[in-house]
Amino acid sequence: MNNGHIFKLFDEELTALKEKILLEGSLVQTAVRNAIVALQERDSDLARRVIEDDDLVNAKEVEIDEFCHRLLALRQPAAKDLRLITTAIKINYDLERMGDMAVNMCDRVLEISLEPQLKPYIDLPQMAEIAETMVQESLEAFVKGDTQLAWKVTGEDERVDQLHEQIFRELLTYMSQDMTTIPRATRLLLISRYLERVADHAVNIAELVIFLVEGKIVRHQTPRGKTNSPPSEIS
Amino acid sequence: MNNGHIFKLFDEELTALKEKILLEGSLVQTAVRNAIVALQERDSDLARRVIEDDDLVNAKEVEIDEFCHRLLALRQPAAKDLRLITTAIKINYDLERMGDMAVNMCDRVLEISLEPQLKPYIDLPQMAEIAETMVQESLEAFVKGDTQLAWKVTGEDERVDQLHEQIFRELLTYMSQDMTTIPRATRLLLISRYLERVADHAVNIAELVIFLVEGKIVRHQTPRGKTNSPPSEIS
Repeated sequence: MNNGHIFKLFDEELTALKEKILLEGSLVQTAVRNAIVALQERDSDLARRVIEDDDLVNAKEVEIDEFCHRLLALRQPAAKDLRLITTAIKINYDLERMGDMAVNMCDRVLEISLEPQLKPYIDLPQMAEIAETMVQESLEAFVKGDTQLAWKVTGEDERVDQLHEQIFRELLTYMSQDMTTIPRATRLLLISRYLERVADHAVNIAELVIFLVEGKIVRHQTPRGKTNSPPSEIS
Repeated sequence: MNNGHIFKLFDEELTALKEKILLEGSLVQTAVRNAIVALQERDSDLARRVIEDDDLVNAKEVEIDEFCHRLLALRQPAAKDLRLITTAIKINYDLERMGDMAVNMCDRVLEISLEPQLKPYIDLPQMAEIAETMVQESLEAFVKGDTQLAWKVTGEDERVDQLHEQIFRELLTYMSQDMTTIPRATRLLLISRYLERVADHAVNIAELVIFLVEGKIVRHQTPRGKTNSPPSEIS
């Protein structure tokens, strides 16, 4: 086997790694989307299926982690390739947690479905849609090394935060007007928080991509604590 | 430079890596502890200092990440050593997020300190103490490769979850009895959630250590969704 062949093989392996990450990402996106559909349709079966299917995400995570370690051990990559693989390790870690968020959402959906619907869901599905797009774009940015797209993702987080604050305020109003709504409202609030965390993970991925490609550390420059603030109006 | 010398050098580097992680961990522990002290003493200056000092955690994170990449590139470690370094990369990622949680806590402390104290704080400091111990023990487990200690950490999470549920219930009662308490109560609730997430990160680290030493995947076997549930009593 000559050197050229090894390089070609390694390139193919890196492509395979990216494909695995994309596949894991699409599993996570589907899980988040179905969690919200389950909420809207009060579909406990779907919620339970999302929870069960998290095993697939977990299996993918283990597979990708192993694959990365094999590449590191066998190919002993340097510089850019090394950084690509360690970035994949971190992205994989983020994706698995997003899967957990979808599971948490479905746990809440199962509880909420036992009670009458508190309100029509408008903001949550919208938030989920943005979060899902962010996940997809952050992974596309990784695969293509597209920092412009990655920067776009970091910008989209603000919209998610706004929606979360809006939902937060609305639910507080429900709770303060009628205390029997508190259990349902707090669960919806948690679902909103899980979605916000999915978006946060997408931002993490986008920032990893920017660092990978531009060598610029974005992470510690974004306004800290922003995403977890309750609305300032309630103070 | 003979091989023996290189191995010795590499061993020293791995020791240095562990020490760096411990140092970062102690910064994070201090931040979490001070966030709670700032809450208890209504000390806005201290809260602001914790927020500023997060820069030190961030700098440490970058330094450790760079150090790991240098080790991977220069030493091209195999098997166990390789896994040790990639584990350090993940732990580093977790620690930095814990630092962010302390910052989030302090943001809420600054807001809460503008209003009269809602209640004496008993459960939150206790929760913080447990979380802090979990962080310390998980890192000690990593440095010593002590899986028994790591398993202990995974068990301690239940106590944190119980405290969180207790706090959650208590605050819901406050809110439902007097709606003027809602802003303060929701902020305390968030602080409780941040602490719970600190504990979750410590569990992540403990599970990474168990996998590193025993090759056993714990992560996906813990009861899913558990830590994020609201108290079942409110349903």
